[in-house]
Amino acid sequence: MSWQMARRAERLNPSTIREILKLTEKPGIVSLAGGLPAADGFPVGAMAEATARVYRDSGREALQYAASEGYAPLREWIAARLAAKGLDADPARILVTTGSQQGLDLVGKVMIDPGSRVAVESPTYLGALQAFNAYEPEFVAVDGDDEGPRPEGLAAVAGARFIYLLPNFQNPSGRCLSDERRRALAAAAAAAGLPIVEDNPYGDLWYDQPPPAPVSAHAGDNAVYLGSFSKVLAPGLRLGWMLAPRALFPKLLQAKQAADLHTPGFNQRIVYEVVKDGFLEQHVPTIRARYAAHRDAMRAALETHLPAGCRWQVPSGGMFFWIELPAGLDATALLPAAVAAGVAYVPGAPFFAGGGHANTLRLSFVTVSPQQIERGIALLGQVLKEASA
Amino acid sequence: MSWQMARRAERLNPSTIREILKLTEKPGIVSLAGGLPAADGFPVGAMAEATARVYRDSGREALQYAASEGYAPLREWIAARLAAKGLDADPARILVTTGSQQGLDLVGKVMIDPGSRVAVESPTYLGALQAFNAYEPEFVAVDGDDEGPRPEGLAAVAGARFIYLLPNFQNPSGRCLSDERRRALAAAAAAAGLPIVEDNPYGDLWYDQPPPAPVSAHAGDNAVYLGSFSKVLAPGLRLGWMLAPRALFPKLLQAKQAADLHTPGFNQRIVYEVVKDGFLEQHVPTIRARYAAHRDAMRAALETHLPAGCRWQVPSGGMFFWIELPAGLDATALLPAAVAAGVAYVPGAPFFAGGGHANTLRLSFVTVSPQQIERGIALLGQVLKEASA
Repeated sequence: MSWQMARRAERLNPSTIREILKLTEKPGIVSLAGGLPAADGFPVGAMAEATARVYRDSGREALQYAASEGYAPLREWIAARLAAKGLDADPARILVTTGSQQGLDLVGKVMIDPGSRVAVESPTYLGALQAFNAYEPEFVAVDGDDEGPRPEGLAAVAGARFIYLLPNFQNPSGRCLSDERRRALAAAAAAAGLPIVEDNPYGDLWYDQPPPAPVSAHAGDNAVYLGSFSKVLAPGLRLGWMLAPRALFPKLLQAKQAADLHTPGFNQRIVYEVVKDGFLEQHVPTIRARYAAHRDAMRAALETHLPAGCRWQVPSGGMFFWIELPAGLDATALLPAAVAAGVAYVPGAPFFAGGGHANTLRLSFVTVSPQQIERGIALLGQVLKEASA
Repeated sequence: MSWQMARRAERLNPSTIREILKLTEKPGIVSLAGGLPAADGFPVGAMAEATARVYRDSGREALQYAASEGYAPLREWIAARLAAKGLDADPARILVTTGSQQGLDLVGKVMIDPGSRVAVESPTYLGALQAFNAYEPEFVAVDGDDEGPRPEGLAAVAGARFIYLLPNFQNPSGRCLSDERRRALAAAAAAAGLPIVEDNPYGDLWYDQPPPAPVSAHAGDNAVYLGSFSKVLAPGLRLGWMLAPRALFPKLLQAKQAADLHTPGFNQRIVYEVVKDGFLEQHVPTIRARYAAHRDAMRAALETHLPAGCRWQVPSGGMFFWIELPAGLDATALLPAAVAAGVAYVPGAPFFAGGGHANTLRLSFVTVSPQQIERGIALLGQVLKEASA
């Protein structure tokens, strides 16, 4: 039998990162590749108690079909939190999604025709490239400097369906945009008639000082803003949300309905029960303290072990260091030697829509212990020294 | 600002049924419109106990990111259950989805190009039309008779990307295909080179005798088979799955990854913990007994109250009676009068991809009590008598 697939299926391919992660599952490997939150920071006890209350007080409602928009009290809680960040956040414009990955898929579905241009940072989040890719866009990378995408670069991508931005501790680069750059990007996007899709999975994971207000706070109806409970609570719940402009919300809602009817009401009620009385105000600082110590361990290990010619910035939040190797080295080609030596990372090239940048790699500092970080970076340093020799 | 949307957004429209359901939320209305399972049949106690065990034994794992394919023990459990139905069900070909609605979306994403023909029954499930619609197919309705789609009709739709079939107690018609018809359809599809997408949300809800083996059991690698826990356990978990041919599985998996990374691992572990020791063997018969009594109440009420000229079959399972009114009546036009009288239903026309059939309507018998069914059908009968007069 011949199954004739859609043309877009050609662009659906195994995630490079997931393939790499399989290599790193051998026992004894120090994996700095994954982007998993540290599971021993999950508030299992608080969640178990909240879940018991949901079953006791509204078990039948939690297990029944529910509204496609999401659970109303949770939408109100999210809106209040966003208002505190300077966003014009009407609960009626909050759509609860099955993880923020689904938000990216819905944006792609509603916004992208085959051949539409979509502007992205260079590098950018691989999962967004995958989500959008299913709708067959042409990606265009925006010129950037050490401070992020250059506002002057936005005129060149006018006419793109939107620009996708991760201003806070970006995956993979760890970069956080300054307040000045955010305001300038919002103004340049408005001048170019370029809508903004802003993604903020990591904004609460700051270690030095809170990030500036979102780009969307300066963009009025010109932005979709996405967020998630995956990094501050737990990813296994698959709970995210988006704040959408009035012009777009009805179509995103209808796309959501067609995609999975609604995000599990059970999960939404549990999360609301956990967060409603200020739990995150106590809990998130414990994650910050843990991850900040991990980051400092990685910084120290990098300074000790990486050979001359490697460059990195110390991230002020998030989960990743981004390393530029000396120009001649190829992080993809070096990976087998690193895995053989006992350490894994993610090569940086797949994060660039336009290819190139073979000499970059991403290191996660949140999943393994500071001791393991020291050991892994020492092994990585050895591999790089041998390759440079 | 102008948000330029994708062309497909024009085809994303509010669900007619959801709009109707809003009308029926007035207090005092007997709603026979919704397709919600009876919430007092949800096994809240068993689920609460299973959830407590998941937190106790594997809380961190349940709350962490997980495999896109789904939780391995659950996939094995599903495969074993399908093998008992006569399907060639390798766990490696089971993909866990966020409700079976997501399965329909993923099939559409991987299989449908703009303008592709998709063959459907007449009538068919509205949610499938919505999911596929986002990928801009041309729907073609297959000729049918009282026994379902006619095998002789499949040659006329050769070249379609697939035929979408609901052989068990179809939503909306309640129809269940005979074993003979299933075998003939599988053979005719193979002869026409037409892949099958078979959807089975209702198969366990049989009231007289179990349905015959799936069409897919006769179709080898020529079928995708979708199922769900929504009707036998609870829909608020959003847990479904599909069994896909080897040729299609990798692309469906990659589409799943792009769509929401994975279905909540938390929910998958809870459901596995509930079902693993045979719980459904005790639980589903209680749902069957409850719904069978509701069906019998509706049958009796229809016989008593509906005027001459109305036609229906008694469904042997599922959730719906399907009524044909005398040719001159329009169920959509009559709905406001029915709601004013205190009863709601869903007009049948939206379930037909090709339009027409204004004189049909769908009645759900599972959500309201037998007493309310009697009252609602009496009111409906009065409205229809007045309209016929």
